[in-house]
Amino acid sequence: MISEGDYVLLYLDERRSWIARAETGKQFHTHKGIIDLSELVGKSFGSSILTDLGQVLYAIRPTLAHHVARMHRPTQILYEKDVGLVLVRLGIGPGSKVIEAGTGSGAMTAALANTVRPNGHVYTYEIRQDMAAVAHKNLVRTDLLQYVTMKIKDARLGFDEEEMDAVFLDLAEPWEVIPSGRRSLSSGAYLASFSPTINQVEKTVQALNTNSFIDVRTLECFVRDIKVEMGRTRPRSVMIGHTGYLTFAAKILS
Amino acid sequence: MISEGDYVLLYLDERRSWIARAETGKQFHTHKGIIDLSELVGKSFGSSILTDLGQVLYAIRPTLAHHVARMHRPTQILYEKDVGLVLVRLGIGPGSKVIEAGTGSGAMTAALANTVRPNGHVYTYEIRQDMAAVAHKNLVRTDLLQYVTMKIKDARLGFDEEEMDAVFLDLAEPWEVIPSGRRSLSSGAYLASFSPTINQVEKTVQALNTNSFIDVRTLECFVRDIKVEMGRTRPRSVMIGHTGYLTFAAKILS
Amino acid sequence: MISEGDYVLLYLDERRSWIARAETGKQFHTHKGIIDLSELVGKSFGSSILTDLGQVLYAIRPTLAHHVARMHRPTQILYEKDVGLVLVRLGIGPGSKVIEAGTGSGAMTAALANTVRPNGHVYTYEIRQDMAAVAHKNLVRTDLLQYVTMKIKDARLGFDEEEMDAVFLDLAEPWEVIPSGRRSLSSGAYLASFSPTINQVEKTVQALNTNSFIDVRTLECFVRDIKVEMGRTRPRSVMIGHTGYLTFAAKILS
Amino acid sequence: MISEGDYVLLYLDERRSWIARAETGKQFHTHKGIIDLSELVGKSFGSSILTDLGQVLYAIRPTLAHHVARMHRPTQILYEKDVGLVLVRLGIGPGSKVIEAGTGSGAMTAALANTVRPNGHVYTYEIRQDMAAVAHKNLVRTDLLQYVTMKIKDARLGFDEEEMDAVFLDLAEPWEVIPSGRRSLSSGAYLASFSPTINQVEKTVQALNTNSFIDVRTLECFVRDIKVEMGRTRPRSVMIGHTGYLTFAAKILS
Repeated sequence: MISEGDYVLLYLDERRSWIARAETGKQFHTHKGIIDLSELVGKSFGSSILTDLGQVLYAIRPTLAHHVARMHRPTQILYEKDVGLVLVRLGIGPGSKVIEAGTGSGAMTAALANTVRPNGHVYTYEIRQDMAAVAHKNLVRTDLLQYVTMKIKDARLGFDEEEMDAVFLDLAEPWEVIPSGRRSLSSGAYLASFSPTINQVEKTVQALNTNSFIDVRTLECFVRDIKVEMGRTRPRSVMIGHTGYLTFAAKILS
Repeated sequence: MISEGDYVLLYLDERRSWIARAETGKQFHTHKGIIDLSELVGKSFGSSILTDLGQVLYAIRPTLAHHVARMHRPTQILYEKDVGLVLVRLGIGPGSKVIEAGTGSGAMTAALANTVRPNGHVYTYEIRQDMAAVAHKNLVRTDLLQYVTMKIKDARLGFDEEEMDAVFLDLAEPWEVIPSGRRSLSSGAYLASFSPTINQVEKTVQALNTNSFIDVRTLECFVRDIKVEMGRTRPRSVMIGHTGYLTFAAKILS
Repeated sequence: MISEGDYVLLYLDERRSWIARAETGKQFHTHKGIIDLSELVGKSFGSSILTDLGQVLYAIRPTLAHHVARMHRPTQILYEKDVGLVLVRLGIGPGSKVIEAGTGSGAMTAALANTVRPNGHVYTYEIRQDMAAVAHKNLVRTDLLQYVTMKIKDARLGFDEEEMDAVFLDLAEPWEVIPSGRRSLSSGAYLASFSPTINQVEKTVQALNTNSFIDVRTLECFVRDIKVEMGRTRPRSVMIGHTGYLTFAAKILS
Repeated sequence: MISEGDYVLLYLDERRSWIARAETGKQFHTHKGIIDLSELVGKSFGSSILTDLGQVLYAIRPTLAHHVARMHRPTQILYEKDVGLVLVRLGIGPGSKVIEAGTGSGAMTAALANTVRPNGHVYTYEIRQDMAAVAHKNLVRTDLLQYVTMKIKDARLGFDEEEMDAVFLDLAEPWEVIPSGRRSLSSGAYLASFSPTINQVEKTVQALNTNSFIDVRTLECFVRDIKVEMGRTRPRSVMIGHTGYLTFAAKILS
């Protein structure tokens, strides 16, 4: 049952869907007509709803992936394919304590927070005040702010936390933060770094090697959409060729 | 600090590592010599330890990914790349109630259980007694059994649960289980299916379309290793070209 | 030296270039201004030329790849990556006699003709009169028509030639033409087929297996662009995810 | 008809085939038994032949791709996927004059020679005497030596030819040879370079940019095998993840 204030994914087709909130007295405008958001309250998820132009939309329960995909993102994009790989390879789960730098739009912050709750915590560092404001707004929307401590601070100056279960870096110059990350990370635990260029990766790997990290591994992940129709199945013509490289490494005692 | 009974990843190099348990009075044999497992107790994770042949190994904290990668797997392999994408796209997190069929070796079961704890639950169905026994052993090892209910039962006959937050199918004939999955899934929530062949995917998508699912999307995920050395960086020559296709869909009210 | 009547690639940047003919008294219009095509005559290839708006363009010698990429193509696109693989795997070279069906826009016809000249020949079959007319125009432009015999005929009714060195099929239902292709192909030689969907491939492979072909192999080819800038190198964000599958097989005596 | 001295591909299955010569009085040994090579003479290509152990092998006409794949290769491997792309993008065809450096095992030399014959020519440079000897043997075998001039010479000291239609570099330090390549290349024509590491590519692109080349483009090409069986079709589990990067550029007048 959809309650007042619930977020709802309004699904039209594979290319068009929106997240709105079920709210009495509010409207939502699409190019296929206007939805009366009051009507959503009390319906089941999975129901259909009509716009004033007669277009059917379906009310789907938004997953974190939907929220993340719709976050306002002024920065480099981390796709869900990368998010999943980071969570699994860093071994993040409920109860984990994680440092993230930088916060960016908060997309990864939300994914981390969602995974560590209710007993874990995410400490996220961002040097730019304006970016932190964007992330704050995004985190409020996903109702995950209580699992996150946001800090407006230069990550190169060091993190305030210790004995973290994982560290995730999404910075232009991650190699400068490897020593800080190392100090805050539990020994035997993993750090990950996301970078769009191969030159950033080279410097990051070099810094990991000289800072007593082992099991240093760099991956790139591709996802291709398949257009499935009985008897006419083929991959989509266009795909995302690159988002960034992911580097993982484990801290050992030096 | 490593305690008696803790699992430890003994890391030699990128191709060779093992999971062992810190246990007083036990030994662990590798082709690089014998480790006295008593010695691990009381050390920090991240420490090094010597085999009787003088080989240095590092004691890393095993993540779930390490456990999963080492599970005895008589069945089709789901890689960590696929596991991450399933968790993120199904929107699974702490508290989620999830159905899985079939259990197989328990690798995905463990990943699901680790993500839904402590308040969520995984109901996993397996038709073969011998497979269920393998999975049980693997789940005991990862200490996640308390979050899992294992059922030896034919998934085509229906699931016992209702209002599930997600359904995950890893079956030879997933299309036969779409109606069962639909009945147990909350409306507006997502189902996922993993299949190695494109023909399985076609039948699954057809069943989803005729059973009132929308947002039906099939993906394949590739991961490539990059060999990073300053000034000599290149992708690895050999990569995994295929594990399986992942299909996702949301249930609507019919 | 560019002569009267020579084709010239006018290169502006990586996204914008045009093929024009050096012709006295003719002009060429671009959105960056007008070129006087008389001016090209007598210049070296590699020279620059100015539009009336002062934009520099470079006069490059067009390769067959440039012509092919600019052909009017009402049909499914075969990319240069696929063309190269077909030529190499079919073992086509100067002197080869090759059957192609269907002609389509003539892009592959041109590539085949260019490779078999001066002593080889391409016999190309097209069922649609309008398509054949498009192809004819394209082949005149590349000056390769003398190496090609065009036939407007249903390939399922059989080919007129025998003892061909290679057969290339680019048809909606290639499996229906495998027996015709077999009859015209030298024994021990190779046939190739290009199809966008995996279902077409299944039927084609089945027909090859039942028509005494061996070494049946299906490939898909991906090409990714790398954006190379010293210190900022990364793959392009978007790539072509699929054009079609290529199937190859050798005819044996039955 | 197979004549005395003809090369024949003896095909067992997708993983096992050999090239042998039809020669009276000679035998060929496989782990599936011995073939009497006299028996091949006078048979049709496409025929089967029995080993003394009763194993059926098929006599296929070897294409250049087969010869190239079986060349003794002490150096970095250029795959057929890369060969095809180079031929098409460089616009090489019958009559082309091409410089290659270095010769390596002669695999690309053979592909180039096969494409430019009968009126074109390949000038190939190799600094190592031992490599040149290997290449010579491989070229004799493919009967293409008459279209090739082999030079044992350091490519950095310059090429002896001028007004070449294309230049192909397969060197450890291609950037050092860009000026030589430029001098020998016709203006408006294309050069290509093959390199395994991204760092080589960066330096090569930089050298191209500072030596008046335009349309500089770097590509990587992947080929995946599909295992096609009616109703059970899937990509192969393992694929080649990387051979090298291909960089192309056109010379302009400076």
